[in-house]
Amino acid sequence: MKNALIFQSGGPTAAINASLAGVLDAGRDKYDIIYGAINGVVGLKEKNVIDLTAKLKSEDGFINRLCLTPAMYLGSCRFKLPDPAVSDTAGIFTGIFEYLEELNVKDLYVIGGNDSMDSAAKLAEYSEILKNAAGADTLPVTVIGIPKTIDNDLVNIDHTPGFGSAAKYVASSMLEMAYDTSIYPVKSVTVVEIMGRDAGWLTAASALARNSCIHAPQLIYLPEVPFSMDECIESVRKLHETTNSVMIAVSEGIRDKDGNYIAASDNTTDKFGHQQLSGAGKALEYAIGDALGVKIRSVELNIPQRCGMHLASLTDIEESAGLGRHAVEMAEKGLNGQMSSIRRISDDPYQTEYTECPSSSAANDVRSVPRDFINESGNDVTEKAVKYLRPLIQGEVNLTYNNGLPDFLSIKHLFKS
Amino acid sequence: MKNALIFQSGGPTAAINASLAGVLDAGRDKYDIIYGAINGVVGLKEKNVIDLTAKLKSEDGFINRLCLTPAMYLGSCRFKLPDPAVSDTAGIFTGIFEYLEELNVKDLYVIGGNDSMDSAAKLAEYSEILKNAAGADTLPVTVIGIPKTIDNDLVNIDHTPGFGSAAKYVASSMLEMAYDTSIYPVKSVTVVEIMGRDAGWLTAASALARNSCIHAPQLIYLPEVPFSMDECIESVRKLHETTNSVMIAVSEGIRDKDGNYIAASDNTTDKFGHQQLSGAGKALEYAIGDALGVKIRSVELNIPQRCGMHLASLTDIEESAGLGRHAVEMAEKGLNGQMSSIRRISDDPYQTEYTECPSSSAANDVRSVPRDFINESGNDVTEKAVKYLRPLIQGEVNLTYNNGLPDFLSIKHLFKS
Repeated sequence: MKNALIFQSGGPTAAINASLAGVLDAGRDKYDIIYGAINGVVGLKEKNVIDLTAKLKSEDGFINRLCLTPAMYLGSCRFKLPDPAVSDTAGIFTGIFEYLEELNVKDLYVIGGNDSMDSAAKLAEYSEILKNAAGADTLPVTVIGIPKTIDNDLVNIDHTPGFGSAAKYVASSMLEMAYDTSIYPVKSVTVVEIMGRDAGWLTAASALARNSCIHAPQLIYLPEVPFSMDECIESVRKLHETTNSVMIAVSEGIRDKDGNYIAASDNTTDKFGHQQLSGAGKALEYAIGDALGVKIRSVELNIPQRCGMHLASLTDIEESAGLGRHAVEMAEKGLNGQMSSIRRISDDPYQTEYTECPSSSAANDVRSVPRDFINESGNDVTEKAVKYLRPLIQGEVNLTYNNGLPDFLSIKHLFKS
Repeated sequence: MKNALIFQSGGPTAAINASLAGVLDAGRDKYDIIYGAINGVVGLKEKNVIDLTAKLKSEDGFINRLCLTPAMYLGSCRFKLPDPAVSDTAGIFTGIFEYLEELNVKDLYVIGGNDSMDSAAKLAEYSEILKNAAGADTLPVTVIGIPKTIDNDLVNIDHTPGFGSAAKYVASSMLEMAYDTSIYPVKSVTVVEIMGRDAGWLTAASALARNSCIHAPQLIYLPEVPFSMDECIESVRKLHETTNSVMIAVSEGIRDKDGNYIAASDNTTDKFGHQQLSGAGKALEYAIGDALGVKIRSVELNIPQRCGMHLASLTDIEESAGLGRHAVEMAEKGLNGQMSSIRRISDDPYQTEYTECPSSSAANDVRSVPRDFINESGNDVTEKAVKYLRPLIQGEVNLTYNNGLPDFLSIKHLFKS
């Protein structure tokens, strides 16, 4: 028999552990041992792995509890692999593949977002290089990508694991805040800043809060359309003629017509060259407050929106596990360098099927919210967007509580002893 | 038969509608009509009331759904009644009591925090004044207070409705964020700002997130103890010797030894003379980040913590309804000017009983976290605090979801037509 290894990387979501659980579930009879590398490709590089098969055997209900544990059971990293085709000066690939051979790992699963799919594509490419160099018939390792990101901005997939749960958190919190902000009969504005640097999917999901009674958020601004503060202020002024409580959903990444972020940005960038942002919500709060002199506050949903397991979408968790199980089938077929993906067949009834695409294709492109999902004025989403989004937040997880709090798996293995 | 009237005021909580439901449940057979005044005492002044008895009869499961609808079904106000004993120049009390007589209202229920208990006490006092002036044997109206506040800072009550649910939200979110912030093997700090202007009860509840695996938040700062930024920075530096992810729970109202708020305060005050605050979390983020040069972010839990019905404490919701039902018994006994209260008999097993105290006593005093609930260094809570807090977050509500979102009662009656 052969072994497998899994690592997770990128930012956390409520659903990424469900994909890990899916691989374990489908792989338990196919591998002697399924290893987990701690802290992504760094754990692989540093030979820091745990035996997930042993956890599976020793802990009751391990797979179910893993599905309902947020963030990353195996930890993450922000490490960018070099190009395997150009050179391997650091010996990184050599070291990794020697270690995988030592562990008898034939299938490698990489769960993560676009940077992680970049790692998956590079590891797959190096596996091909090794095969060709040896003139072998088979690959030393088959590398399969499994996507996740609350941003929903990967290409070649209908929607990404983690997005539905974050969307449910955003829409539910928006609904609850709409109740909260409706209690005073005075003109007020509540600006809610939602995650999404380049794509406004999660901010768009705030529209799902609307029902026959609640019309909030009345304004929705996404990074896909240039933002005009003057037009925003005018929209609020008009809304206040008929509505006391105006709620605005705003993506952290909104930009003006010249491409400048509407934010108190500090102009620093992370290792992948992404600009660090803060403060689109605050920027609106100050500008609208100054212009209209009304009661105003801004709320940044911040990290709870991506790790809110207690409000996860059952659809999301089930699909995330399904993508993990599908990845095991893909490895069996030797689909090296491919990513487990999902295709939508219909909105209503909601039907999907699992499929695959090259990991490299998901690595660097960003899938924006299409223009016809946004209204002409650029301050709301269309019915088409709502039809796309609605199925993704359906269903609630059956989370166990212990002593009043969600009962998650221990992540002691992530901490220094 | 006679009628009753209820109003709500002050800030929203997840539990205040459960107290309204409790009054309706116990009062449905005692009154012909139970009215609800829209937007607190302002609705009473302006004769803006709805017939809750009709709602009860026409909407299936109205009481249960009301218990699980956050914020304020009847809306709120921030209106301070004048002193009824000094003068009634505005005719406010005269107008209100004439209207109550017109409606045949004999019992008036006021649900709210300390400012609302002030209103309840003044209305009760005016009722006595009217009785004495008329030389009557009975009061025109019996006024009963029903407490609520997520701040848990009312006196003469073991804990306040709404606090347990907010505490459960804070502790659960802290636990989920602890998972989120543990994924990278790098030194980081996450500052979580929690509501609580003068009392640190809600911030103290963040300690409930701790278990055998999660030690976050490692530092807890309450307004009850002077805050020293230097000591805080030194504590973080020491923690980073053994721990990568340090979480700090900080109350919005922390002050230095001279009583100055640790915040980017704009020095404005609300109508009740409370200073408006923002930014204790940000203040720590900037100071610790500058001093230690580590990855740092601050999260303000903001309004979701007080309206997060989806994460309400069943204990809190049941007790809030119980306080409403007890208030109806109090009205029957003619306990004018009294507030429905709760007394703890034991922590383990958790046992309480309903009791009463003067509304006026709860009106103006603030109940701080006792010194022996806080450790000597002033940067954590003690086991005594945890024993007090733990029972209050027990149990989960059985919220119905519709189309992926919590299914709350419509609050159309709060909106302008």
